[in-house]
Amino acid sequence: MRVLETVGGPADLKKLTGQQLTDLAAEIRDVLVETVSRTGGHLGPNLGMVEITMAMHRVFDSPTDRLVYDTGHQTYVHKLLTGRAPKFDTLRQQGGLSGYPDRAESEHDIVENSHASTALSYADGLAKAYRLRKEDRHVVALIGDGGLTGGMAWEALNNIAAAKDLKLVIIVNDNGRSYSPTVGGLATHLTSLRTNPRYEKILELIKKNLGRTPLVGPPMYEVLHGVKKGLKDMLAPQGMFEDLGLKYVGPINGHDRQAMEDALRNAKAFGGPVIVHAVTQKGFGYAAAEQDEEDNFHQIRPANKPRGWTDVLSDEMVRIGHRRPDVVAITAAMLHPTGLAAFAKEFPDRIFDVGIAEQHAVTSAAGLAMGGLHPVVGLYATFLNRAFDQLLLDVALHKCGVTFVLDRAGVTGDDGPSHNGMWDMSILQLVPGLRLAAPRDGKRLEELLNEAVDVSDAPTVLRYAKGEVFPDIEAIERIGELDVLERAGTDVLLVGIGAMAATAMDVAHRLEAQGFGVTVVDPRWVKPVDPKLVELAAKFKFVVTIEDNGRAGGCGSMIAQALRDAGVTTPVRDFGIPQRFLDHAKRPAVLQEIGLTGQELARDITELIAQHSGDAMHEPDPASGRPGGA
Amino acid sequence: MRVLETVGGPADLKKLTGQQLTDLAAEIRDVLVETVSRTGGHLGPNLGMVEITMAMHRVFDSPTDRLVYDTGHQTYVHKLLTGRAPKFDTLRQQGGLSGYPDRAESEHDIVENSHASTALSYADGLAKAYRLRKEDRHVVALIGDGGLTGGMAWEALNNIAAAKDLKLVIIVNDNGRSYSPTVGGLATHLTSLRTNPRYEKILELIKKNLGRTPLVGPPMYEVLHGVKKGLKDMLAPQGMFEDLGLKYVGPINGHDRQAMEDALRNAKAFGGPVIVHAVTQKGFGYAAAEQDEEDNFHQIRPANKPRGWTDVLSDEMVRIGHRRPDVVAITAAMLHPTGLAAFAKEFPDRIFDVGIAEQHAVTSAAGLAMGGLHPVVGLYATFLNRAFDQLLLDVALHKCGVTFVLDRAGVTGDDGPSHNGMWDMSILQLVPGLRLAAPRDGKRLEELLNEAVDVSDAPTVLRYAKGEVFPDIEAIERIGELDVLERAGTDVLLVGIGAMAATAMDVAHRLEAQGFGVTVVDPRWVKPVDPKLVELAAKFKFVVTIEDNGRAGGCGSMIAQALRDAGVTTPVRDFGIPQRFLDHAKRPAVLQEIGLTGQELARDITELIAQHSGDAMHEPDPASGRPGGA
Repeated sequence: MRVLETVGGPADLKKLTGQQLTDLAAEIRDVLVETVSRTGGHLGPNLGMVEITMAMHRVFDSPTDRLVYDTGHQTYVHKLLTGRAPKFDTLRQQGGLSGYPDRAESEHDIVENSHASTALSYADGLAKAYRLRKEDRHVVALIGDGGLTGGMAWEALNNIAAAKDLKLVIIVNDNGRSYSPTVGGLATHLTSLRTNPRYEKILELIKKNLGRTPLVGPPMYEVLHGVKKGLKDMLAPQGMFEDLGLKYVGPINGHDRQAMEDALRNAKAFGGPVIVHAVTQKGFGYAAAEQDEEDNFHQIRPANKPRGWTDVLSDEMVRIGHRRPDVVAITAAMLHPTGLAAFAKEFPDRIFDVGIAEQHAVTSAAGLAMGGLHPVVGLYATFLNRAFDQLLLDVALHKCGVTFVLDRAGVTGDDGPSHNGMWDMSILQLVPGLRLAAPRDGKRLEELLNEAVDVSDAPTVLRYAKGEVFPDIEAIERIGELDVLERAGTDVLLVGIGAMAATAMDVAHRLEAQGFGVTVVDPRWVKPVDPKLVELAAKFKFVVTIEDNGRAGGCGSMIAQALRDAGVTTPVRDFGIPQRFLDHAKRPAVLQEIGLTGQELARDITELIAQHSGDAMHEPDPASGRPGGA
Repeated sequence: MRVLETVGGPADLKKLTGQQLTDLAAEIRDVLVETVSRTGGHLGPNLGMVEITMAMHRVFDSPTDRLVYDTGHQTYVHKLLTGRAPKFDTLRQQGGLSGYPDRAESEHDIVENSHASTALSYADGLAKAYRLRKEDRHVVALIGDGGLTGGMAWEALNNIAAAKDLKLVIIVNDNGRSYSPTVGGLATHLTSLRTNPRYEKILELIKKNLGRTPLVGPPMYEVLHGVKKGLKDMLAPQGMFEDLGLKYVGPINGHDRQAMEDALRNAKAFGGPVIVHAVTQKGFGYAAAEQDEEDNFHQIRPANKPRGWTDVLSDEMVRIGHRRPDVVAITAAMLHPTGLAAFAKEFPDRIFDVGIAEQHAVTSAAGLAMGGLHPVVGLYATFLNRAFDQLLLDVALHKCGVTFVLDRAGVTGDDGPSHNGMWDMSILQLVPGLRLAAPRDGKRLEELLNEAVDVSDAPTVLRYAKGEVFPDIEAIERIGELDVLERAGTDVLLVGIGAMAATAMDVAHRLEAQGFGVTVVDPRWVKPVDPKLVELAAKFKFVVTIEDNGRAGGCGSMIAQALRDAGVTTPVRDFGIPQRFLDHAKRPAVLQEIGLTGQELARDITELIAQHSGDAMHEPDPASGRPGGA
């Protein structure tokens, strides 16, 4: 019988012997490699978290003590140790375990959001609440070295340091991915580790990391290392943390479970906020992942990757880079995932990786534009929310020519509610002067990117889906900015936004089969609303818009407003994502569930047409993306 | 002839003798006190900036070198020295000088946004652009000690430190308002200042600051002081900045113009990013402002203050605090302006001032709620944009009972485009589960605040205007959540949102005088849209909504969508703020300009009714808040 099978929860973990714990760690690694290779998900980060997580659960008493994980993709081990091992093979499958913490799954999960740099703020609030309520509970926040590059984490540290009596332990999981090559300092710091039996291993590991030359150094993180210069004992406040008033413990070999436990016990006993600095290795214990220079094992995808939207962007950026020496690119710690790596390789002095720092990314882009360049900022759509204020007041108010390319827009599916890019087209509607495009296929992505970088007096945004790029749909005609994709009558004008243009074509064919006359347009630029679209709409009996963005304040809503403003009385129905948090599942399953498939849309539109002769009143169904219920 | 009259621009400043410069400083202080006492505006911060600004313009060559000011309210001296002295008496008046930098006013202004902590990011981008374009220009960023508590500033420092060859000088204007009483460290640091002839003055000034006990200590800022412990020479990297790789110069007496000039010349010559730490005193040179413990001179208002929305909030928060021991309050460096000071005084262990750190404010509120408390977060409406992601994913996704009170919502007027609170009701529509209320008067603010703090499973938001609270309007009847304020027929249903309910009443009386039958409702809770409002709307010939929020995705847009979804065909017209940046002027003047007055609205609605019989098509006017142009 495997040790893992005996662990129904943290209490069982506390009873195990040293040998059993060592065996358990090996078993967990086997399960991680076996499961994630099959289901997809984050392998490297979780392999690096095995001993830390075990130590956390042995020293603290979850859920009385609360464990808050930053960017929840590093909680697989936590799931295995909190009674979810039997269901672990359902990871990231519909109805199965989430790839992130999930309060519905377990009382040991408390924070579900997967956006980085938030854990310290949650922990600050939790610990202050317990203090005020006089509850004797510890809060443990785990944050990566990458998470510390986000300004929000520093806002939290600033506040935590001022609260000397909080029962709050911060574990920094330093997996070496963010080192700058400041060899001298680091080598010195290792002195303090000489008493550690795993010293040789850590030394080797850190040396390996130092051999890498990251594209950008996050020097704020060097502080963590710089402070160790004067390291004398385990609980002395050091350097920067001394100035901040935070106790510092470390560095600890994060793969030495006993050392981690000792450090956490010390930290727990201290009675005030403590930082425990654990040095780990992404992919530890799995040779292929350990030697993964390009971070391929960070997130595993089960199948071969066909050409994606990201690849189209990547190639076109290189072409534009050659044509336009003033074009530069910015990424917030997402060089490869946003497709800017090829541009970076070709133009190494024209790429800026700012760390997990979307706010700075956007405002520094404003500065670059003011200085005469044209920056292209690559972000996941969901992370744009982090920098809305900066886009509005720093870029748009100053009429800066900055292009944003938003990858993973719309329903992304299996990474759960905080990864869906369903907010961008609504918040962008608010930004004066901004032009927003949603390319329907790869050819349009190329075309619109070129149009976007030619705009020098306003921000432009392109947003496109995750995954495989859609087959090209050629236009029959262009009217204003609109591409007419289908022209077969004036009963229904179908407006297909971006990725939903293909769905609109499917809907059109279904409606035509029923005898309706349907025209399909792709607005290409969805903001501002093209006056030609308003003119066109006036000639139809119905206008139907389809977008994979939240319905509230989305493109359909803006088109309806434009028609109202112009006195066009054609009834409008705006289909989109219902304004709720979507459960994790594959994109097609999610689209099916919210009614955004060709079949469901065609049925709904047929019903709407039928109903429209009467004056029947229908209650809206807030759980559905379809207007008028059903 | 006064020296100021001879200064047409920075070049003139460079020709002046020491005595002339001393005279000029005194003249500038006179002008500031005289003008701001009359026009209103920021007095204290500008009195503290006189010598620093003079030194900046003497050492650098604006606009070839670029001066970027964080939170632009400290640029009055800059305006006086860049040719705008003759127009300075028009400060903050319609058509006159803006209270913030304004590119339309001068080539010496580059950044207009007044939101804090952004300057370093702009400067990073500008300096990198000049480097890439091989232009020999310096960038100078001025940021206050308060601005450094914002995480965005740390994101920028992290990146600037990695760029060793940027021609970038960061001046920290440390006006002592953010000190924590860490006497020992500070006293030691002063050693290095002994050679400075102004030493006694600085010592006295710092001692005075140490006598204060701020409600919250921003320990990150202590770092600036902590690092000085080991201070040895002027251009040696110190402590934390050493770890970051940033050169540090200081501390300098920011009121010693010659010392400031010397420091800036050294920094300019260095050739890489340098931090110059200037210690100043808010209100310097004007006794009343120097001794201003409660920071009344930070911003001057010309007249006596009548009871405002903020006062109503303040009083009700204290009442609720007594009734509900679980209610706590959070402010982001806005304790007095948001009306939470009285609560803080009454319940000193239940207030958290987090510094200029809206992101942390919101996510730590989620933590407090998870820990069993009910936090009330007080923010200016415009600053909520800084924490949209945190509200969405940290608070709402986790169904946390957190109440947000948004002061200065709608048109605030004289502080210019970045201070208007015209975005909040649109971004809040996107947040699943969130409930949003817009109280129409003081009595409703009290009522809705009590309803809000009773919601424990979702975020609630109250938003209200700046300034004097509106006279109470009592309801005739309540239907669902709606207050019926006027019931005189079924031609037009007027929906008055929050502060615009009073305007809706005015419109109603004007329309009634013309023979139309008008009913006025205030939805109180504007999100979610009350099904009773949809039912009611079906009985009218026209629905007109009025809000002082941007039209894109606003309340009117959501009501129109709810009617579409329910198949209600009553035509809707949604009035609100046009989606553009508004020029500074008094609130009534702005409302007049955008057509949101009783007279203009009544005229527009009359026209709309007349037009509706025909099918005339009208081009929308994007510059107007009124649908359908005109």
